[in-house]
Amino acid sequence: MTVDSPVTASLDLAAVGSAVDRALEGFLARKKREAHALRMPGEVHQALSDFLFAGGKRVRPLLCAAGWYAAGGDPSVPVPVLTAAASLEMFHTFALIHDDVMDRSDTRRGRATVHRTLSALYGAGRSQEAADRIGAAAAILIGDLAMVWSDELLTGAGLTPRQLAAALPIVRTMRTEVMYGQYLDVVAGTSPRGDLDRALRVIRYKTAKYTVEAPLHLGAALAGAGAAVCGALTAYALPLGEAFQLRDDLLGVFGSPTATGKSRLDDLRDGKRTLLLELAHQRADAEQRRTLLTLVGDPLLDEDGAARVRGVLDRTGARVAVEELIRDRREQALHAMDDAPFRADAVALLQRFARTATIRSA
Amino acid sequence: MTVDSPVTASLDLAAVGSAVDRALEGFLARKKREAHALRMPGEVHQALSDFLFAGGKRVRPLLCAAGWYAAGGDPSVPVPVLTAAASLEMFHTFALIHDDVMDRSDTRRGRATVHRTLSALYGAGRSQEAADRIGAAAAILIGDLAMVWSDELLTGAGLTPRQLAAALPIVRTMRTEVMYGQYLDVVAGTSPRGDLDRALRVIRYKTAKYTVEAPLHLGAALAGAGAAVCGALTAYALPLGEAFQLRDDLLGVFGSPTATGKSRLDDLRDGKRTLLLELAHQRADAEQRRTLLTLVGDPLLDEDGAARVRGVLDRTGARVAVEELIRDRREQALHAMDDAPFRADAVALLQRFARTATIRSA
Repeated sequence: MTVDSPVTASLDLAAVGSAVDRALEGFLARKKREAHALRMPGEVHQALSDFLFAGGKRVRPLLCAAGWYAAGGDPSVPVPVLTAAASLEMFHTFALIHDDVMDRSDTRRGRATVHRTLSALYGAGRSQEAADRIGAAAAILIGDLAMVWSDELLTGAGLTPRQLAAALPIVRTMRTEVMYGQYLDVVAGTSPRGDLDRALRVIRYKTAKYTVEAPLHLGAALAGAGAAVCGALTAYALPLGEAFQLRDDLLGVFGSPTATGKSRLDDLRDGKRTLLLELAHQRADAEQRRTLLTLVGDPLLDEDGAARVRGVLDRTGARVAVEELIRDRREQALHAMDDAPFRADAVALLQRFARTATIRSA
Repeated sequence: MTVDSPVTASLDLAAVGSAVDRALEGFLARKKREAHALRMPGEVHQALSDFLFAGGKRVRPLLCAAGWYAAGGDPSVPVPVLTAAASLEMFHTFALIHDDVMDRSDTRRGRATVHRTLSALYGAGRSQEAADRIGAAAAILIGDLAMVWSDELLTGAGLTPRQLAAALPIVRTMRTEVMYGQYLDVVAGTSPRGDLDRALRVIRYKTAKYTVEAPLHLGAALAGAGAAVCGALTAYALPLGEAFQLRDDLLGVFGSPTATGKSRLDDLRDGKRTLLLELAHQRADAEQRRTLLTLVGDPLLDEDGAARVRGVLDRTGARVAVEELIRDRREQALHAMDDAPFRADAVALLQRFARTATIRSA
């Protein structure tokens, strides 16, 4: 299978990204007008709009378009398909807003998280606890609205009945599975340390299936793809999604906050049971284990403490092991393209994506 | 219009309630099997099942069936319509679970709230704060799943494409409006006291439209109702929904916890800006106002303090005024039935409902 794409009529991902943003903007503007007519607070749209347009790589909408294209869809992606792709970004907005509330994170995309912004907005003259509480409550509701609106974007996208019927089971499964993955992650702290199997299942459901497989499948289904195309997309998506998350976990601890827009202390302060940390636990000697147990999960962990944890992750070989896992999985994903029944330039696009998703600094 | 119903082939609300419960049970059992196959935690289904079957009046599914029947639907309600009705109960489960997290309520339906149960389940060996946090996070996710699954119940109910197309706009509006109402309620504390207009808007969106109008409209739409039927249902639903919520607000402060299953301190401790309290503020003299400002919103309020607040609500006449508002609105709702284009026994059913919803102790 050739890697070079023909020069004409290829999928333009930058154009897809802009079109998705326009769909989101247009949708939020309409919601804002409707809310104004009901005399409802404008903060909801402001918060969602600020969040959506502060950044975000639009990975899921782009993969949706890639799935569409790989399955033979027209390179000039029709508006209903773009709107369905945009619905994935709105859903992700919901997931991130709730995630930040649950993790009590302060920053995301280089700015204050939604609950922190709202706590500052509504908290004037209140105790910190009362302000936090109102911020969290408002953010939970804005997240809920984002979820409801992601559904509205999808079902109101103007898809044909056949397309919608093909899309709904994929979206249903995606929603349920990502939340199971989140749940498993949230309650991970109650299971024994060094549980690699659990950490891998979290990655599979929270990221590999949710971020990579489901968007590709959605796009492909909208283009009328059959089982062969979906199977090939899965063979690519699952290892790639795992590599993508493992890269994220490394960036969460070793990355540059300027590049990622996230604190590199949050994951450690939260005691997030990433595969990286579970591996370190497995390989640690008694002293290293004590360091991990004392520092990881300490909400007041500072840069010095984090540097000590990073030292353990290095010395146990956990960091290198995760880099190896990333490389293996990337190769697996690339290899899955060898016999994939896609047009040649779709293959090239997915191969490029596999590289940028796993070799990145943000 | 006559009030007496013909003896045969009338809508059997008790049967509807059982059928809705069976639909919910069957759905959760299926989800549990699916989760088991994915090796996902069974706590999710247990928590939802415990919550759903600990009580709940099934008001929304019953009103959905009543709307169906009023609009000429068959008294033996078909399974797809029952499943759509059940989706309203699943949606409400989502709303209540998140509501309890936001309000930090300890009890609901006479037992521990979902986040408290989960905090006890996962919190062993942790600090109270850590346990609370994991309980809240798990409950947010279970609420999210309930919302996603309410959608799955609806779109997978087996409705005809025409029924589904009629249902979706109603459900979309309902979801958005109830969350706006919740949002307005959550941030109410930041607006001036005595704001009756805001309190009434919260009631309209959080209850009147969500609990009464939308379920009736959904059922009617599934039976193919036109504008006249929907208009008559709205004329009934909005005043009745307001009366229903005003009764709830009174019960939240004056009710018997044994009957309601809810603490009668929570609303006062939360400083909930109900119309009852806003009215009291408007009518209070300087000393009464001081009592309200000091005690309402105090998270440590005890029964003695609550008794003093109740005294103010009585002496300012706020309680009586709310009782009058309930009576007026109930009469308005009953009056709306005079020329309603419904079959006679549907009118009787809605009249009975208007009475039980507004003259109740639980």
